[in-house]
Amino acid sequence: MSDSAKTSIGIDFGGTSVKLGVCCGDELLFTDEPIPTAQFHGPTALIGEMAARVAKLRAAHPAICAVGVGVPGLVDFEHGFVHELTNVPGWKHVPLKTILGEKTGLPVVVDNDANAMTYAEFRCGAARGLKDVVGLTIGTGIGGGLVLDGKMHRGIGCAAGEIGQMSIHFDGKPGHYGNFGALEKYTGNQQIAEHAVQRYAEAGIDKELADCTPRNIAAAAQAGDDIARQIWAEVADWLGTALASIAWLLNPEAFVIGGGVAQAGDLLFKPLHHKVQSMLSTVVWERLQILPARFSNEAGIIGNAALAADAV
Amino acid sequence: MSDSAKTSIGIDFGGTSVKLGVCCGDELLFTDEPIPTAQFHGPTALIGEMAARVAKLRAAHPAICAVGVGVPGLVDFEHGFVHELTNVPGWKHVPLKTILGEKTGLPVVVDNDANAMTYAEFRCGAARGLKDVVGLTIGTGIGGGLVLDGKMHRGIGCAAGEIGQMSIHFDGKPGHYGNFGALEKYTGNQQIAEHAVQRYAEAGIDKELADCTPRNIAAAAQAGDDIARQIWAEVADWLGTALASIAWLLNPEAFVIGGGVAQAGDLLFKPLHHKVQSMLSTVVWERLQILPARFSNEAGIIGNAALAADAV
Repeated sequence: MSDSAKTSIGIDFGGTSVKLGVCCGDELLFTDEPIPTAQFHGPTALIGEMAARVAKLRAAHPAICAVGVGVPGLVDFEHGFVHELTNVPGWKHVPLKTILGEKTGLPVVVDNDANAMTYAEFRCGAARGLKDVVGLTIGTGIGGGLVLDGKMHRGIGCAAGEIGQMSIHFDGKPGHYGNFGALEKYTGNQQIAEHAVQRYAEAGIDKELADCTPRNIAAAAQAGDDIARQIWAEVADWLGTALASIAWLLNPEAFVIGGGVAQAGDLLFKPLHHKVQSMLSTVVWERLQILPARFSNEAGIIGNAALAADAV
Repeated sequence: MSDSAKTSIGIDFGGTSVKLGVCCGDELLFTDEPIPTAQFHGPTALIGEMAARVAKLRAAHPAICAVGVGVPGLVDFEHGFVHELTNVPGWKHVPLKTILGEKTGLPVVVDNDANAMTYAEFRCGAARGLKDVVGLTIGTGIGGGLVLDGKMHRGIGCAAGEIGQMSIHFDGKPGHYGNFGALEKYTGNQQIAEHAVQRYAEAGIDKELADCTPRNIAAAAQAGDDIARQIWAEVADWLGTALASIAWLLNPEAFVIGGGVAQAGDLLFKPLHHKVQSMLSTVVWERLQILPARFSNEAGIIGNAALAADAV
């Protein structure tokens, strides 16, 4: 860190649980018991509980100077205003920064969860020390974030980084917005499973969708299953096409890839390296790294805490 | 302009001619006679002529405080070092900024021509007043530039903005680098012409490639030729797919599109608007503009002059 390390709270607000932790610089000092999201109906109750937790954490860590919250949805970063969280009932048009700021008396920043993940990797993780970094989490959907010239690039509507919606085929499968060829319709968890069922069927092997999770396909590939290896090569082809396009556009220093699908490790990363290299000029490729994320579950806490610390 | 307007020289270094002009703020005060590139063999002679022209222009415009040069190739912006100009013999590893700076005694900046075009539109043209702008020139190839948060984004190797190399089809036509589905293999001048010949042939109409320039296809569409209109709709589909992907990634305020293909005007821009909107969420679309470039031949002079003025 360029300045002396600040102590801040990171809150990772998910549809299932709200995770909280205290960070100082790149160190995660303490992780609190998660709040089950569904136990608190509506924003007022849940923000109340967040504020109570913040008060408790401050008692133990008096140096805390800011709070960062990452939410699974669209945010107006400047105002810390949550437009809508589709997976959390009642969260629509919530001035989260204002309310939590008033209740805690601390500076609060509110950002998108994929931005927080990217920022965690940029500040303290796999991409530490770099300044042009593209983060991706690949799971049920694909989220992304951009650090350009050492700062989050959020775009005019704070909606930048939607890598999962980028097209890899102008006439391909329709995405959530009717956008043809959306990447996440190829390399999301469910789509990988569906593709695997089909590939096995073509080889005369019957598989249930539930048996074709990315984790299972990775295990099969590890065990020497050629079809499973082929599936990872195809996933790498699709994902690599999108990464190469992003590299041509932004000429970044690194992609940092996390989320469940990235757990496949070398099964994914090896063919992905090969694919991306095959699509780029030397000058774009030679300074590009494709890195597995350092953080997993704690990425949100660390990223939000860092965003908050850097804002004060 | 935020500061009081500075007077600077913009040099647009092309494979055929080197164009020079004097700008003050967003005003093009004077355009000099172009230098025929081939008349000066090698960098030393040509840079000598540039320096002589700069001296002449300074005699007439004593307020000139900087020189900006845009080149058709890869540059190290920080050092003003030209890596290679594939279309200009002898231009390889040339420290243009250093040499021209020594010869003129003025601060010199050297950038890529597509960056200069984008900067011209951002500073003085169609995207004036915006801060997140993606520029494209569509002609023989497709060049691009990015202004993000009010500054050129050049990337770690100064190679950002290569929109023509982005893939719109993971299994599509191979581009110059073996990258499948490269946009410029669909919507470059030559590719539009080839596609048109094929579309006419499918309708039983024999056309020569030379008769299928974008200009001719635009004229035919204007005259009511349904096949020609269909061709523009297809070009808009391909281009729109790439623009939508960029919009999902960057959430910019504007695309500014210039170059010969953009001369088709509404024939291209109308279906392009429709296509891009159909691929985006409301939040990404509602603050996005798709604009024809204001400048054409003079974009390089204006953009390079502005880059130089803003650097001093």
